[in-house]
Amino acid sequence: MADEFDVIVIGAGPAGENAADRAVRGGLTAAIVEERLAGGECSYWACVPSKALLRPVDLAAEVARVPGLTLGEIDVARVLARRDEAVSAYDDGGQVRWIESVPIEFFRGRGRLDGPKRVRVTTEDGDERVLTARQAVVLATGSTAAVPPVPGLAEANPWTSHEVTAASSVPERLVVLGGGVVACEMAQAMHGLGARQTTVVVRGGRLLGRMEPFAGELVAESFAEAGIDVRFHTQMERVERPEPGGKVTVHLGDGPPLEADEVLVATGRDVATRGLGLDTIGLPDDAPVEVDDSMRATGVAGGWLYAVGDVNGRALLTHMGKYQARICGDVIAARARGDELPAMRDLADSYGSPQVVFTDPQVCAVGRTEEEARNEGFRVRAVEYDMGAVTGAYLLGDGYRGKAKAVVDEDRKVLLGVTFAGPGAAELLHAATIAVTAEVPLDRLWHAVPSFPTVSEIWLRLLETYGL
Amino acid sequence: MADEFDVIVIGAGPAGENAADRAVRGGLTAAIVEERLAGGECSYWACVPSKALLRPVDLAAEVARVPGLTLGEIDVARVLARRDEAVSAYDDGGQVRWIESVPIEFFRGRGRLDGPKRVRVTTEDGDERVLTARQAVVLATGSTAAVPPVPGLAEANPWTSHEVTAASSVPERLVVLGGGVVACEMAQAMHGLGARQTTVVVRGGRLLGRMEPFAGELVAESFAEAGIDVRFHTQMERVERPEPGGKVTVHLGDGPPLEADEVLVATGRDVATRGLGLDTIGLPDDAPVEVDDSMRATGVAGGWLYAVGDVNGRALLTHMGKYQARICGDVIAARARGDELPAMRDLADSYGSPQVVFTDPQVCAVGRTEEEARNEGFRVRAVEYDMGAVTGAYLLGDGYRGKAKAVVDEDRKVLLGVTFAGPGAAELLHAATIAVTAEVPLDRLWHAVPSFPTVSEIWLRLLETYGL
Repeated sequence: MADEFDVIVIGAGPAGENAADRAVRGGLTAAIVEERLAGGECSYWACVPSKALLRPVDLAAEVARVPGLTLGEIDVARVLARRDEAVSAYDDGGQVRWIESVPIEFFRGRGRLDGPKRVRVTTEDGDERVLTARQAVVLATGSTAAVPPVPGLAEANPWTSHEVTAASSVPERLVVLGGGVVACEMAQAMHGLGARQTTVVVRGGRLLGRMEPFAGELVAESFAEAGIDVRFHTQMERVERPEPGGKVTVHLGDGPPLEADEVLVATGRDVATRGLGLDTIGLPDDAPVEVDDSMRATGVAGGWLYAVGDVNGRALLTHMGKYQARICGDVIAARARGDELPAMRDLADSYGSPQVVFTDPQVCAVGRTEEEARNEGFRVRAVEYDMGAVTGAYLLGDGYRGKAKAVVDEDRKVLLGVTFAGPGAAELLHAATIAVTAEVPLDRLWHAVPSFPTVSEIWLRLLETYGL
Repeated sequence: MADEFDVIVIGAGPAGENAADRAVRGGLTAAIVEERLAGGECSYWACVPSKALLRPVDLAAEVARVPGLTLGEIDVARVLARRDEAVSAYDDGGQVRWIESVPIEFFRGRGRLDGPKRVRVTTEDGDERVLTARQAVVLATGSTAAVPPVPGLAEANPWTSHEVTAASSVPERLVVLGGGVVACEMAQAMHGLGARQTTVVVRGGRLLGRMEPFAGELVAESFAEAGIDVRFHTQMERVERPEPGGKVTVHLGDGPPLEADEVLVATGRDVATRGLGLDTIGLPDDAPVEVDDSMRATGVAGGWLYAVGDVNGRALLTHMGKYQARICGDVIAARARGDELPAMRDLADSYGSPQVVFTDPQVCAVGRTEEEARNEGFRVRAVEYDMGAVTGAYLLGDGYRGKAKAVVDEDRKVLLGVTFAGPGAAELLHAATIAVTAEVPLDRLWHAVPSFPTVSEIWLRLLETYGL
């Protein structure tokens, strides 16, 4: 194995893999260094297993809305077995084979910077070797679950997204700390798969606090109906777990303590920069790696360092990391050839990343919320429409509840943001992502006719409500 | 009730209703004449009841693909009851109240032209009155199921879309004549709801013959697995039904005759122009009413006649009829005010109407097929991708099979057409409808990032396959 490559990528998650792949397609040689499993957080401990757990719960809710269908009890063992299949039983052999087929040289070990264009790889056994990059080093180390400094919490060995998505059984009583995407999705999954008592402890006053307020409200309503207990404006003050793996007692700011079998912490992510050797090149190692729109780290002499995915702090979403990685790999290859194209720039992050929350109702959004758009100084008009009033939604089942909102830039008559919340809404999003990203004028969108009777007719209703 | 209105609309289906509604919003008075039920074919005997029948069948197929879920037998009585609810038990009271609330004057009776700007209304009792239009008459009479001249077929009183969507029970043995949308959807619905023997007789070599060939192939595969017997290259030669409502014998071009309890004819539509009085103004009454892009009938002195929806023959789809109707109502109001806007034109029909087929797999398409685009002289490149290979599709269930195809105009680098076939694909379409209608350049679509893990990631795969 050579020790010199055009490009060295640290982190073989979806972002790292895509960056290396695109660089190789551009004619370069590449190596990728991964300490854990090739495929990354998303494939084993985040998006993929969480959706494998949520799908049967989601579908059961759909079935319950359709008269004439009756579902038996969910066979949790089979759901967990399919989750295991979805994560390849936590074996990355297939991923490594794909990486090597590109070809990309795969190094198993912890990678860290060791001065300019040098990456030191330490294997589990402690063996070390230093790789040298001719063109670029790409950081793609992602992020890890943050555990807030609640007394006793870390000692109680709480679940994070890692453990909950990899659960081999469903706890009877679960306390979830947080109100964001992971908290909502996993509360729903565990409750739907049989947790008898699921309590969500939220510091603020709403769920999904970064999205349009109605989204979190609809999810909170659905949780209340399902018997998930959401405690708003509540702090976790202290946690006790005398026996490792035993019962947990969670003391809240007010009210009696909660007894639980597991605690899930879902309060945010820390970017994985610590110990990455950023200090060896004069960068801080306790903050996201700042990059320009070509994904090149700012403030690094010679411009050989790039960062894609969570570690650059732009958008902590797999698809955005992959997008950034495609740009990054293309840019590195183009710069090596000397024919860089201006189109190879991250445009999407500046519009506002698309995101889907796989709760029931599903929530998805792209671009800016109304509040964000106003705060940024846009002259804004927002329109909303009840998705349940669309014929296509009625035809999906009884009691379909949902809402859509479009945020219009009144000066340019284009969409700044769109949010949908409703059962099965996930696939509605890409139409909005195209409309927002391509800045399609409203009077052109008016001629894009949604098919009857799909839920997409919400587009017609939103535009009619706007006044078209 | 006055006898003079700015606008008189014949036909209170979705197209007629929308034309009248938009004209009234534009400041005009309007009347609408309907012989049968206000709400039209779509609401009672087409899109709405067919989807109410298909939804449980479709969802049952989804459930079967998700390990851990088990469905009981479909309760057909409850499905039919919800279908009845979806069609308001064939009572148009709610629709008439909505019409009158606009306000639009509602006349129950058969409407037909009686010379320029005059509409004669004949009630069931034979009473007649003549209405006069100050500005415009809009024809929105739709279409009726065509019954081909097979000996004995008409005499056997076969089902059409009307009867099958209104069925009060599911026939044990059903023969379906035709391979288009109605034939496929209703074969699937009846079979899924319990028909033991469903035979589809197709003159040509494929299902859904107007769409990309792979769409019909995937549906045919799914039918074969479900036990629906599709006979390609087969003609129905003669039909016998000695007892009204009794057993039917269908003689084919080859092979033994088929015994059935019902025959469904789904071989196309005739536009509803006959008896509409077109002869009183010098137009043929056996052809679609030709219109320009403002929906105004060509060749009528004074330009007071319009036609929207099926009757103009442009696109026999509810959503396109409604779209044309919005344009038509706006145009009539604008012309009355003298401030017609050039934007009030039918653009969508020229791009190729979007359409969804609610079979399993669902099929949807917008714009041109590859063949159509080539025949029209475009320099075309088409790319295809296996939808089952998208992570989001795998997460929906085992054995997800589907395919997507994009047809690119190589000169302008925009999409001319997109087709998706796969379970639950219906809501994928609107993204394509926006991309095709707004002519979003491929290098801009590249920055519209599909969310992981949705099925919409097919967009990324198609663009990567194209070479982006």
